[in-house]
Amino acid sequence: MHVRVMGAHDGLTAVLAERYGFDALWASGLAISASHGLPDSGILTYTEVHAAAVQMRHASSLPIIADVDSGFGDNETVARVVRLYESSGIDAVCIEDKAYPKRNSFVDGNELEAPDIAASRIRTAKQAQRTADFLVIARQESYIAGRGAEDALSRARLYEKAGADALLVHSRQEHAGEIEEYCKLIREDGIRLPIFAIPTTYHQTSSDSLSSVGISATVYANQLMRASITAMQDVLESCNANHRTTEIEGEIATLAELFQLVGMAAPAVSRL
Amino acid sequence: MHVRVMGAHDGLTAVLAERYGFDALWASGLAISASHGLPDSGILTYTEVHAAAVQMRHASSLPIIADVDSGFGDNETVARVVRLYESSGIDAVCIEDKAYPKRNSFVDGNELEAPDIAASRIRTAKQAQRTADFLVIARQESYIAGRGAEDALSRARLYEKAGADALLVHSRQEHAGEIEEYCKLIREDGIRLPIFAIPTTYHQTSSDSLSSVGISATVYANQLMRASITAMQDVLESCNANHRTTEIEGEIATLAELFQLVGMAAPAVSRL
Amino acid sequence: MHVRVMGAHDGLTAVLAERYGFDALWASGLAISASHGLPDSGILTYTEVHAAAVQMRHASSLPIIADVDSGFGDNETVARVVRLYESSGIDAVCIEDKAYPKRNSFVDGNELEAPDIAASRIRTAKQAQRTADFLVIARQESYIAGRGAEDALSRARLYEKAGADALLVHSRQEHAGEIEEYCKLIREDGIRLPIFAIPTTYHQTSSDSLSSVGISATVYANQLMRASITAMQDVLESCNANHRTTEIEGEIATLAELFQLVGMAAPAVSRL
Amino acid sequence: MHVRVMGAHDGLTAVLAERYGFDALWASGLAISASHGLPDSGILTYTEVHAAAVQMRHASSLPIIADVDSGFGDNETVARVVRLYESSGIDAVCIEDKAYPKRNSFVDGNELEAPDIAASRIRTAKQAQRTADFLVIARQESYIAGRGAEDALSRARLYEKAGADALLVHSRQEHAGEIEEYCKLIREDGIRLPIFAIPTTYHQTSSDSLSSVGISATVYANQLMRASITAMQDVLESCNANHRTTEIEGEIATLAELFQLVGMAAPAVSRL
Repeated sequence: MHVRVMGAHDGLTAVLAERYGFDALWASGLAISASHGLPDSGILTYTEVHAAAVQMRHASSLPIIADVDSGFGDNETVARVVRLYESSGIDAVCIEDKAYPKRNSFVDGNELEAPDIAASRIRTAKQAQRTADFLVIARQESYIAGRGAEDALSRARLYEKAGADALLVHSRQEHAGEIEEYCKLIREDGIRLPIFAIPTTYHQTSSDSLSSVGISATVYANQLMRASITAMQDVLESCNANHRTTEIEGEIATLAELFQLVGMAAPAVSRL
Repeated sequence: MHVRVMGAHDGLTAVLAERYGFDALWASGLAISASHGLPDSGILTYTEVHAAAVQMRHASSLPIIADVDSGFGDNETVARVVRLYESSGIDAVCIEDKAYPKRNSFVDGNELEAPDIAASRIRTAKQAQRTADFLVIARQESYIAGRGAEDALSRARLYEKAGADALLVHSRQEHAGEIEEYCKLIREDGIRLPIFAIPTTYHQTSSDSLSSVGISATVYANQLMRASITAMQDVLESCNANHRTTEIEGEIATLAELFQLVGMAAPAVSRL
Repeated sequence: MHVRVMGAHDGLTAVLAERYGFDALWASGLAISASHGLPDSGILTYTEVHAAAVQMRHASSLPIIADVDSGFGDNETVARVVRLYESSGIDAVCIEDKAYPKRNSFVDGNELEAPDIAASRIRTAKQAQRTADFLVIARQESYIAGRGAEDALSRARLYEKAGADALLVHSRQEHAGEIEEYCKLIREDGIRLPIFAIPTTYHQTSSDSLSSVGISATVYANQLMRASITAMQDVLESCNANHRTTEIEGEIATLAELFQLVGMAAPAVSRL
Repeated sequence: MHVRVMGAHDGLTAVLAERYGFDALWASGLAISASHGLPDSGILTYTEVHAAAVQMRHASSLPIIADVDSGFGDNETVARVVRLYESSGIDAVCIEDKAYPKRNSFVDGNELEAPDIAASRIRTAKQAQRTADFLVIARQESYIAGRGAEDALSRARLYEKAGADALLVHSRQEHAGEIEEYCKLIREDGIRLPIFAIPTTYHQTSSDSLSSVGISATVYANQLMRASITAMQDVLESCNANHRTTEIEGEIATLAELFQLVGMAAPAVSRL
């Protein structure tokens, strides 16, 4: 069984991902920040990110994994964040091992948190949860930070010991070489935790291929957001050129489709 | 001078509309509800709609017109709504003359509010504002409700007397006949207020044509939202079919484009 | 067993009520509106009332009953309200049978909702809940509206049939006569639901007395809020008179007491 | 002219302070955290603190100074915080020179931020503001951190150069000795900025005395919050002892007083 997780940033993206049969939602820090028109640099507060996750919760019954960056602060904050999400029906948080405040994994300037501090965040999160089913996923940025496989493995051991329910390995190579290497090392070491991957740069590697090397869940973190940008730019350009939207109407959802998606009665005017 | 107003629903759509040179933003009730995955049936609270308008305020310096349905309640509520928006730097509210709770103008079951009650909402809104520049736009649904031109005109007189700074005439015909008729009647009656139009169904009428019949501002209320839906459905379908996003990558914004839009440093990896 | 419910309006009041051994919290519409400096006239949105209930949820482990007025709108809204509260860990909502938008029970101008509409709200709420334990309490305003015992009884039957888990009878007499009459009628009619009472005007009737006539739970809805007002007025007056707070310092909590309440380390300066 | 500033934590406290003639409001981090039932340890997000300030803004027309701790993060965050508050009609922010995340000034473990970093926060805040009237107050914790007068003075010079509109000197002595020393040094050095003081521990020093040594504004930061705690504890104790609230009713505001405060019609029942 391979879990397919779609990145979402509001209620509508949650509705769409559920309609198309995805297994779970990823409340993406990058996409939620972008929906605010803000950079992914820890500038949005965790209550704002949480508000987007709550929108998804109310719009969909899929499991939701919240991307909570490196935990938004010290352990006291991590504990509050976990309780906030858990008490709103969010199913999991994913905590990464970058220093706080974090930077997006695709820009420079990222530094790893010290292993024991990063592990203590995982431990704090697990101790803070109040229900049995809530999951804490430890996201590893060793490859992003140029620290390599050995660093990733030694941290994975710490995170497992701290109680992590799953691991997420991040890579920004164009191919899945690091992912494959990581899975092999982890399994040889006897660690049995499920492993997540986010094929943003190595998108040519299918979920089947990822599954075959030991990945349990594939996260498509930001494609919906990126697709919406291009489509909206097309509308703006067309409207600028033609002083009307007629030329783009055939390429965008009808009002009837929009109404149907959000549970509204059909439009009174059949052609809409 | 003709004002081009683009419908937006979050900070990102505000950023995009500003980049493409539009003059103002329309904080659309339909689009904001849809972004929550919820129907446009007055179910979202005015504080939730306000939160989306505030996102736009922080993301863009364009004037923002907030679509506040029929005012969200009685006059005491209308006054609070106006102060809430005005104190957050929103430039105008548009109040429609449908009965509360309202339904979307493109579904059946819409009823008009009694003219004097609708006018009293406009008056209340004008009295509630605290700065000189804030605008109250009276949106007229007479055509939508099948009441015709005479009803629209007699109400326009009341709304002008109540202090409205502009009128917005709504129509769901496929052509701009009602718009043309309305503008003619209004001007013959000596009413000099600017008139807004929303060419959703009569999109073949360009803003130039609307301008030539007397419309001062054209609102593209929901096209950005509708475009994003189709584009995201394309991603979901492609990902379902191919178990990866490679096949759709060429049609969606790159991470570099996304980063640039929201003011992030360029990605460390040049091909992104 | 008699349940003692304390009215609260933020996280701190929730902490205090739990420290003093109360059994449950009442997220009071009046007190939450007052904490905003706003009248109790349906002007606060249900998301704002909900935010206060969520503060209590995070501050206390006591069961929380949310006072949701008459449901904040039509049945579609009632359903959303129930899901919003339930998904945030709130244990119960109390829906009253006044017409929407509601007025506070202690001012004039209250009208009852038609019995079948009021009952349909209860039914909608019960159908909307997703967990087994969530409770819907039907609050009856027949006495407040001057409709008397027969009206209350006939409505109680409808609300029970609609699925209400408990009844709440409201009275603004100075003694508990109506409460006693109501309990007698309800029990004689064979209705076995627990009954809540709010002894604001008939405060001389103790919870023991209420229990002896058949009340299961006593709600002290607004006393904490009212106490805080007087105490803060005393500070303001003293500070105005003396140009310092020394004269009132002996009557207000020390910083050490405040720190202890909210889980902070003791002040570094022992005399605080 | 001496400005008297009352610490508030919600809309109601803002209403009260305005009724009693105070000149401005202090949106206190400690009191707002405490109202959530949470410690004053940087755990509340700045959007949550902001929400309380916005409540005050809507409830009162007094100038509002927001206590924003040490700025809630790096300079990018400071800039967003300033714009968020300014665009909501808040009149000033007060930024302190403790390291982030900050601790309350009355507990141990406080560390000062490096002078140049602290000054860069002030500069960032001044550059971020968009209106001419917005004020940035630089709060100095040199005495709290045991660094003494020289450290305070050298930092004051930096903060003035960075654009601070006023200084706030904090002390936790039982008398105003440090305040007096600081004012003398600052004035001898030629710095002309207004100076704020918070006489929590040295409450015996009246605003007149503070004024005579050179303080321009006195802040009563947490007395309203502390008064409300004691009063509410009295209610809880009395209710526990007597199983009713009769014994405490004479000491708490009547419903009529509460209604009058928040602008509600008088109760229908005259004795309330």
